[in-house]
Amino acid sequence: MVGLGTIMAQTPIPFSERLAARIRERRNPVVVGLDPQWASIPSALRRGVDADHGADVAKVYRAFCLQILDAVGGLVPAVKPQLAFFEELGPRGLDTLLDVIDYARSLGLIVILDGKRGDIGSTASAYARAYLGAASPWRGDALTVNPYLGHDTLEPFEAAAVERGAGVFVLVKTSNPGSAALQDLAAPRERVYRQVARHVETMAARTSGPSGYGAIGAVVGATYPEQLAELRAAMPHAWLLVPGYGAQGAKACDVALAFDREGLGAVVNSSRAILYAFARPEYGDRFGEARWQDAAAEATRDMIDELAAARG
Amino acid sequence: MVGLGTIMAQTPIPFSERLAARIRERRNPVVVGLDPQWASIPSALRRGVDADHGADVAKVYRAFCLQILDAVGGLVPAVKPQLAFFEELGPRGLDTLLDVIDYARSLGLIVILDGKRGDIGSTASAYARAYLGAASPWRGDALTVNPYLGHDTLEPFEAAAVERGAGVFVLVKTSNPGSAALQDLAAPRERVYRQVARHVETMAARTSGPSGYGAIGAVVGATYPEQLAELRAAMPHAWLLVPGYGAQGAKACDVALAFDREGLGAVVNSSRAILYAFARPEYGDRFGEARWQDAAAEATRDMIDELAAARG
Repeated sequence: MVGLGTIMAQTPIPFSERLAARIRERRNPVVVGLDPQWASIPSALRRGVDADHGADVAKVYRAFCLQILDAVGGLVPAVKPQLAFFEELGPRGLDTLLDVIDYARSLGLIVILDGKRGDIGSTASAYARAYLGAASPWRGDALTVNPYLGHDTLEPFEAAAVERGAGVFVLVKTSNPGSAALQDLAAPRERVYRQVARHVETMAARTSGPSGYGAIGAVVGATYPEQLAELRAAMPHAWLLVPGYGAQGAKACDVALAFDREGLGAVVNSSRAILYAFARPEYGDRFGEARWQDAAAEATRDMIDELAAARG
Repeated sequence: MVGLGTIMAQTPIPFSERLAARIRERRNPVVVGLDPQWASIPSALRRGVDADHGADVAKVYRAFCLQILDAVGGLVPAVKPQLAFFEELGPRGLDTLLDVIDYARSLGLIVILDGKRGDIGSTASAYARAYLGAASPWRGDALTVNPYLGHDTLEPFEAAAVERGAGVFVLVKTSNPGSAALQDLAAPRERVYRQVARHVETMAARTSGPSGYGAIGAVVGATYPEQLAELRAAMPHAWLLVPGYGAQGAKACDVALAFDREGLGAVVNSSRAILYAFARPEYGDRFGEARWQDAAAEATRDMIDELAAARG
């Protein structure tokens, strides 16, 4: 028998290693983003439900996300619930988020909580405990974090992540058209996003494990491929979470540079292009709306194949 | 009788004007920050409660925040719940947050939700709807927003705020020691925080009402008084939300420059120094822990007086 003392003293397996193992096992780096949006959800799930009643919408979001997990959960290593869409429904939306996280974990998926949190001092510590701490009620594996408040504000997230074997993805270069406004500003020594990247690399290096990667990663959009390549080189110890694939226009060849020779070092997210694949002609024509789960699974398999082909 | 059509067509009173009216009425610009932290809460409220059980802790946070509102709700114009401390408790913490917001509103207080949200595209729109939209389940009056993702990502917040008569406070210069790392970087034309300030002023000016202030304000820490004065001048149409007073070390004279001649244009937040005033010798000696509500009210009155004296 393993005594309680032994269990308490066990070092958790670091996020970097769990993510690497799951990617090797599933043989692909795809993250399915869970962005439930009322108007896009298959009409069969919405029928007879009052869109103005948050608790009822929360039930539809729950059914939709769980069925998406049934469709794609066996294919990919990780999912990324987007907290905004659950927060929009009030506390009942967050009950749904918890159910979605628990179900994803039961399928063996890594759960990256996309909350883009960030604050100072004791508040940063509260966010770190909330989403990364040993007593986190949300039980995600990683959290996205915003660096605008300064490097000191990232420390509580790093500490909580290391303690529990969780992960952090710091926003470095985001995928939206306006991301240049601040992130690309040319400070005397280097651009703002390079400043952030330098600090992320420091934190990633000091938490790195056998995979070569650490607990602190970076969000780097796929919509600026040159900067993606530059940032891959600047942060050799950081897992990259790459958004912008699919609905935002980035292609497989754009993200190929995010990976190391083993195919590790990055995960690539797609949300709407998978969740609502049935609404895209190339899948809708084959599956129809009624077979929306099959459309989601097929879109996931196609993305996996595209990334594999581009990495060559 | 007022017909439904008339009600539907009514333009909501803008946040800038509601805040100005409430400050005039209460004759002070103090915001009490609601940061419930387990270890700091009066022991009488914690007695017999299991700190590891989120739902029970949520009940203690609810009792504490509602009793703080009883103590200070008649003194100040606004309160600022810090979302992190409620999120830390899971969905039951967010039930508590909703109760706290509703109770604060029932007392006529302006409620500034301190969530520091920010994201891109459809996700930014979801956060805007969640916290500022007409159907927001949270029903706050304003939200703090992080600008790192770019100016385009602030637009959904501005649109939702204007539509409902709500407010936004964009992080410009935060109060923490490490805030200089990014915010003070010297870009070719101006520092990063000045870039953000310039955009905030544009949004504030185009939404400004009779008070002279707009729907989009700025968070500017009181711990860097010279930059506070500089940013006051750079954003003449923006309400400033000024943290850092009290527990973080800023004094009344440091924040005096945030106000216009009428005493408008800024609100000053204090959280721990008021909530846990009973633990400060100057109040604890007089009131004792049992009279923690009286200590909170007295600390609030003292802060009101200090600010009035400093504004001269």
